[in-house]
Amino acid sequence: MAIRIGIMGYGNLGRGIECALKQNKDMELVAVFTRRNPETVTILTEGVPVYHVDDAVKMQDKIDVMILCGGSATDLPEQTKMYAKYFNVVDSFDTHARIPEHFDAVDAAAKESGKVGVISVGWDPGMFSLNRLYANAILPNGSDYTFWGKGVSQGHSDAIRRVEGVLDGKQYTIPVEGALEAVRSGKNPELTTRQKHIRECFVVAEDGADTARIEAEIKNMPNYFADYDTTVHFITMEELKANHSGIPHGGFVIRSGKTGWNEENTHIIEYSLKLDSNPEFTSSVIVAYARAAYRLSCEGQSGCKTVFDIAPAYLSAQSPEELRKHLL
Amino acid sequence: MAIRIGIMGYGNLGRGIECALKQNKDMELVAVFTRRNPETVTILTEGVPVYHVDDAVKMQDKIDVMILCGGSATDLPEQTKMYAKYFNVVDSFDTHARIPEHFDAVDAAAKESGKVGVISVGWDPGMFSLNRLYANAILPNGSDYTFWGKGVSQGHSDAIRRVEGVLDGKQYTIPVEGALEAVRSGKNPELTTRQKHIRECFVVAEDGADTARIEAEIKNMPNYFADYDTTVHFITMEELKANHSGIPHGGFVIRSGKTGWNEENTHIIEYSLKLDSNPEFTSSVIVAYARAAYRLSCEGQSGCKTVFDIAPAYLSAQSPEELRKHLL
Repeated sequence: MAIRIGIMGYGNLGRGIECALKQNKDMELVAVFTRRNPETVTILTEGVPVYHVDDAVKMQDKIDVMILCGGSATDLPEQTKMYAKYFNVVDSFDTHARIPEHFDAVDAAAKESGKVGVISVGWDPGMFSLNRLYANAILPNGSDYTFWGKGVSQGHSDAIRRVEGVLDGKQYTIPVEGALEAVRSGKNPELTTRQKHIRECFVVAEDGADTARIEAEIKNMPNYFADYDTTVHFITMEELKANHSGIPHGGFVIRSGKTGWNEENTHIIEYSLKLDSNPEFTSSVIVAYARAAYRLSCEGQSGCKTVFDIAPAYLSAQSPEELRKHLL
Repeated sequence: MAIRIGIMGYGNLGRGIECALKQNKDMELVAVFTRRNPETVTILTEGVPVYHVDDAVKMQDKIDVMILCGGSATDLPEQTKMYAKYFNVVDSFDTHARIPEHFDAVDAAAKESGKVGVISVGWDPGMFSLNRLYANAILPNGSDYTFWGKGVSQGHSDAIRRVEGVLDGKQYTIPVEGALEAVRSGKNPELTTRQKHIRECFVVAEDGADTARIEAEIKNMPNYFADYDTTVHFITMEELKANHSGIPHGGFVIRSGKTGWNEENTHIIEYSLKLDSNPEFTSSVIVAYARAAYRLSCEGQSGCKTVFDIAPAYLSAQSPEELRKHLL
């Protein structure tokens, strides 16, 4: 019998989960839950109902894993611990600094209910975190580097759109090629914020707006742009829609470390992602961990888990024997 | 108390383990075991004894994990299952096709003794296998590519040295840059053996040897070179020693996959290694898994495990709380 999945929240991430489930034949979408009027929400999968979030708990016996697709700022800190009382849950909570408290809250709820809650699943946190852990464990004497991009930063794009006279805008975070090369060379460079990433903005200004003032305001915006080399391109709305409507992202996790009796040998471990769709890739990671959550729950485990706590074999639809034969 | 480690076999790998242990303060080298006369073996660590292999079993109560540094052809198929009767063990068994039978033999022995045996640890099998598994679980609709190099192939170097008139030689396996780029572009190319790797040989010939004949014999050697574009350089023994005495290696594991309702988005997951010393890096992976073997054993687990079966957190000297705070 297929693993029965519920999707809580139907934005970019929820739609990504729906698409990922289509590719995983051992899993089945049972229902989508929304805060909107369910009758106004049309999903892609034929024959699957959309319900109001208030009806979710009634489905407790029909759903093996509930995937929570809310935001990290306000939704997940409440939702994950709440739904862990009723379901095995997976979320993509990505506020790094608040992960310990989120873990504790979900752990308490999931231990009480006997369910499994997997938090902070995606690529960062998620696959990038995993690669940091593996690389640190293998090369304890070394340095970590994370670069993001080339990709769209939603937060920085929002910041651009708040500038007066801006109709719309997209911001790309781009790693500095020279910095990547310096890290790959094993030189263990100390890199400032400015040396690691550049920020490229595509801005649609209102008719007659003072573009010089807009450009200056963006470039000097504290936290978002002031610490970076930022370029601003003014384009038309048509160009923005035609060339900048995707949500690509990616990045690099590199560890450079030394081994040998006198630390005479250098090793570079590099993990990189190049993603056409940030939410669809994140969703694909989440779905693999939903499989793991279900299996852990079937084994009688409970409480909060992260990607660090889950053996890789739990993620795969293949049996341990098949994995050893074909992928080891 | 530190985790007490024994090293069985003191070649390149054994020495690499010794170096890695120096970097891991929660672990301690207790003894090295050799088939040679122990008095003829000098190790790097002061105050640590070298014993004959026949004395290993007597040390059962003094060693938490025995690391087996023998070869995959004849040593490990016998040693791992034998020592799993007495110790938690880790090996780097790398004959991919024979992993299932090795697993079964070690599993039976380790289950009977109540010990943990971790097999096929290193980078391929090992870290490359892990990355294949994670990437396949995340992107079920995609293609896998593994490239090796640039690095020294011991087997191919040995093959060169068996050619008549050859005094010494080193062979480098080198991935074809254009093939890597085609894979990274998401085109999912079908690549022949010749299209993926080239082989570069540095050969020291005997005085007066027929170098044209040697070159032809190498290039046409079935299995080893005939299916590849191979270049042969004749150099002096001095040049070989000066420029080709290291054991670098590395490679790339790439998965290219599609997501989206109509598979409209492409994603590239790439893991790569650039290693100055193949045996020292392999050793560093093994030592991290020795920590895991010890911890699993302390939890009461037994039987054979691979990298697929072990949750990442077990590899790290850091506590789960520290890992969540700093690496997630």
